[in-house]
Amino acid sequence: MKYPTGINKEYKQKTSHSKRGMKLEKDINDTNEFYLASNIAVIHKKPTPITLVKVSYPSRNKAIIKEAYFNTPSTTDYNGIYKGKYIDFEAKETSGKSFPLSNIHDHQIKHLKQIDNHGGIGFIIVRFTKLNLNYYLGIKEFLNFTENNGKKSIPLEYFTEFGYKIKDTYNPRIDYLKIVDYLYFGGKYD
Amino acid sequence: MKYPTGINKEYKQKTSHSKRGMKLEKDINDTNEFYLASNIAVIHKKPTPITLVKVSYPSRNKAIIKEAYFNTPSTTDYNGIYKGKYIDFEAKETSGKSFPLSNIHDHQIKHLKQIDNHGGIGFIIVRFTKLNLNYYLGIKEFLNFTENNGKKSIPLEYFTEFGYKIKDTYNPRIDYLKIVDYLYFGGKYD
Repeated sequence: MKYPTGINKEYKQKTSHSKRGMKLEKDINDTNEFYLASNIAVIHKKPTPITLVKVSYPSRNKAIIKEAYFNTPSTTDYNGIYKGKYIDFEAKETSGKSFPLSNIHDHQIKHLKQIDNHGGIGFIIVRFTKLNLNYYLGIKEFLNFTENNGKKSIPLEYFTEFGYKIKDTYNPRIDYLKIVDYLYFGGKYD
Repeated sequence: MKYPTGINKEYKQKTSHSKRGMKLEKDINDTNEFYLASNIAVIHKKPTPITLVKVSYPSRNKAIIKEAYFNTPSTTDYNGIYKGKYIDFEAKETSGKSFPLSNIHDHQIKHLKQIDNHGGIGFIIVRFTKLNLNYYLGIKEFLNFTENNGKKSIPLEYFTEFGYKIKDTYNPRIDYLKIVDYLYFGGKYD
């Protein structure tokens, strides 16, 4: 979601719980802008899906949405292309020492599974906010966890063992393509 | 855009000019659903980009968008994966015998050019509504036209010469991947 600067106060005050994940989102958007400007990759965040109910047209070329609702997303937030490969991922923050599976929709997991089946690169990025750690976890490793036990959250230990830490850097902020390079293109991971 | 069934009357009456292109959009969405259900490809329409201004929260888990505006899209409407390749396109209708370039945003052309540079498959689908013809035009052929003359629209003849007619079929409605198959995977085009 893009929040304009002239944002309504009512909105600002009441959305604190919805703003979780905004910092990670900003870091990823900045990273994607860096990739695009540097001609490294073309990866964009998808707009937030909504259902329109009421739109008014005060003049011919102006439309104001007067009533709409947020939809449950059927795909992930980010996709694009890198070195000719299709890239698709979801990014989430968590404040604890494990990643609650309720944070990610079933539809999104199903989508990433389909991407993997069709030869794309699917993964999730999870930020452990209090520990200031970002992890890349491939969709195969994600499914390996969820399909083989009934736990409701993935512990940090699983990420350290089967995921890849994304180092904090200045620009790009979250260089997740370094992990993709290591896993798919013979790049270094140190 | 997804228009709910319980749509407001004010909206319905005043949006006739905005509904141009809706029929093609529906046909492409149906086609993409067919591809997905048949495990042929994973291609989705992106949500319409909006800028939120005012959202109210009548209860903890309910959000109503009270004021928002449509943004100019920075990418195309459709992308996804087919046979491991990244697919990206924009679809437009035109009622005349040529395709007005004003129908497609500069950002979208730039985006398709970037996709092409990174090894993806980028194109546009144009429906000539009165002639009931659908054409696939590759981004390279599109740019060949726009970069080599100052015309404000691409005549149908250019599509018949450098594009590919997408045949009307029942299911899928608009089998555009048949053209992709022909151009990139040695498939037949008859």
